Amino acid sequence: MSNQLTNLGRNLIAATLLGLILFAGSPASAQDADPLASWSEGPTKTAIVEFVAAVTDENGKDYVKPADRIATFDNDGTLWVEYPMYTQVLFAFERVKELAPQHPEWKTKQPFKALLEGDMKTVGASGMKGIGEIVMATHAGMTAEEFAEEAGNWLRNTKHSKFKRPYLECIYKPQLELLAYLRANGFKTYIVSGGGISFMRPITMEAYGIPPAQVVGSSIVTEFQIKDGKPVLVRQPKINFIDDKAGKPVGIYQHIGQRPILAFGNADADMQMIQYTKAGAGRSLGLFVHHTDANREFAYDRKSHVGTLDKVLDMAKENDWIIVDMKRDWKRIFPSEK
Amino acid sequence: MSNQLTNLGRNLIAATLLGLILFAGSPASAQDADPLASWSEGPTKTAIVEFVAAVTDENGKDYVKPADRIATFDNDGTLWVEYPMYTQVLFAFERVKELAPQHPEWKTKQPFKALLEGDMKTVGASGMKGIGEIVMATHAGMTAEEFAEEAGNWLRNTKHSKFKRPYLECIYKPQLELLAYLRANGFKTYIVSGGGISFMRPITMEAYGIPPAQVVGSSIVTEFQIKDGKPVLVRQPKINFIDDKAGKPVGIYQHIGQRPILAFGNADADMQMIQYTKAGAGRSLGLFVHHTDANREFAYDRKSHVGTLDKVLDMAKENDWIIVDMKRDWKRIFPSEK
Repeated sequence: MSNQLTNLGRNLIAATLLGLILFAGSPASAQDADPLASWSEGPTKTAIVEFVAAVTDENGKDYVKPADRIATFDNDGTLWVEYPMYTQVLFAFERVKELAPQHPEWKTKQPFKALLEGDMKTVGASGMKGIGEIVMATHAGMTAEEFAEEAGNWLRNTKHSKFKRPYLECIYKPQLELLAYLRANGFKTYIVSGGGISFMRPITMEAYGIPPAQVVGSSIVTEFQIKDGKPVLVRQPKINFIDDKAGKPVGIYQHIGQRPILAFGNADADMQMIQYTKAGAGRSLGLFVHHTDANREFAYDRKSHVGTLDKVLDMAKENDWIIVDMKRDWKRIFPSEK
Repeated sequence: MSNQLTNLGRNLIAATLLGLILFAGSPASAQDADPLASWSEGPTKTAIVEFVAAVTDENGKDYVKPADRIATFDNDGTLWVEYPMYTQVLFAFERVKELAPQHPEWKTKQPFKALLEGDMKTVGASGMKGIGEIVMATHAGMTAEEFAEEAGNWLRNTKHSKFKRPYLECIYKPQLELLAYLRANGFKTYIVSGGGISFMRPITMEAYGIPPAQVVGSSIVTEFQIKDGKPVLVRQPKINFIDDKAGKPVGIYQHIGQRPILAFGNADADMQMIQYTKAGAGRSLGLFVHHTDANREFAYDRKSHVGTLDKVLDMAKENDWIIVDMKRDWKRIFPSEK
């Protein structure tokens, strides 16, 4: 018995010491691997790391409890590529071509006629009304599940004109690192995008580790119907909510019900989300991606037809908004780069 | 050195054995304590426990991965008392009385005049239009944060007419156990209520362990404004969304973006949520509280002015919906009961 106890004791000592060694080893190696490895050293990265350290320090004056660590990210131009045209608009254009055989009337009806003939000037000239008709024709009339499948398949299989990779692979590596870093520090990460909520949701878990319930976006009206005895949600050709500009803080209020402490955008259309975030009582961080890298991605800002970044550039300094210079601050842009 | 090592060894043995004892003790006592102790033994409790066992059994044919374990609960009459009148309507009525000194015009304007004079018959006769005016007068015109504070304070401090306890304590103990049991089994629990999303959110974490982002409800339009240089969300006197009846599956689609596998209601107004849930591809559970206990709570169903439960009672059997008989299935109703 005594001998057995001694043996038990030895084994326990061995096991415990091994445990201590393993335990001592793991934080050290976690520190070695930089969780923001694709971010260049400099003031931007320092500001992010210092902010996260401050709000997670239980003894510090800026401590925020985990339940209140809400981070919101725009999608187009902030998490994935939006140039030369918003992904969802390209999806709508391609769907028109695919659906054309079922719509012989489109051969003579604008702006569908122009789109099918490749006359993009006339499509553009049809304005919001024309583009709206194209979006409704391709986003409504089907069930919620049918649309999710169409959008998911398209994003997985359609290639970007410059990068020759599926759109799902045209997402920014530094942002994937930042999302993971925030989550590892107790943050809940949300997308708050002007894009369609139902267009993004089929891929946000796979692309960003963000589940459907943590996606806020624009939407069309959806109706519950019993169709052939089966309950279905049918998408209607009518706008429900535009989650853009002043709509972003409203979308955050309706969906999340808490004010973010970190918000990340890339355009004037994200300004209100960052203003709302920065107006919170505690410490907060507001950031904008500035697309400055024509070589590795694209360079555009004040006069761009997508993701216009103009007022924000003028107002950033006095408002303590961080402008993330893609060329300077991001060592690599896409996951495929080594 | 050798002596020190021996001491270290002894301490480690002591610490480890203590750890083993504590560890061995905790699962056993967790099994002993029934997580659904307020539910009477019988077919209802068995159905719940069997369902949870089936969807969490990795080797079973009904397995559902944690990310898809979505459970949605109605609030009024399902999680908290709704009789003799919906809590939020009583809040609106009381707020009119509190706000009356700032609104001298209400002395002559219906239905405010009748409400201030205690003439509830005239208030009732003013119908949806009149009640709507009372709701808007008390729910709009302030910032999001001001309203959250008003609602939270009221729910914490106002007592129910029968139970003489704050509304926050008029919540059902068996449902608190069920919510915790589901979460312990990897479910994400949501409220999906016809009540106002902003009325419930200030107390759902405290009352049910459900954070603001997991509350779906009716809402009024909210506007982002810069007021005296400060960004604020101002509540507008205009309906945004009614999360009731056929609106419930729509609210689930917009907010959660996934179909529940368990849904719990108590009225015909919850039927569409349960239909949508039960139409999913895998195994699912749909339940309704039937208020049958006039002594401990209230008894009402087919002809009730609140929480009408009529069609559901006729359709339950053929649709495999579970009717939870409050009197039979709940050992105790409120947390204050021993």
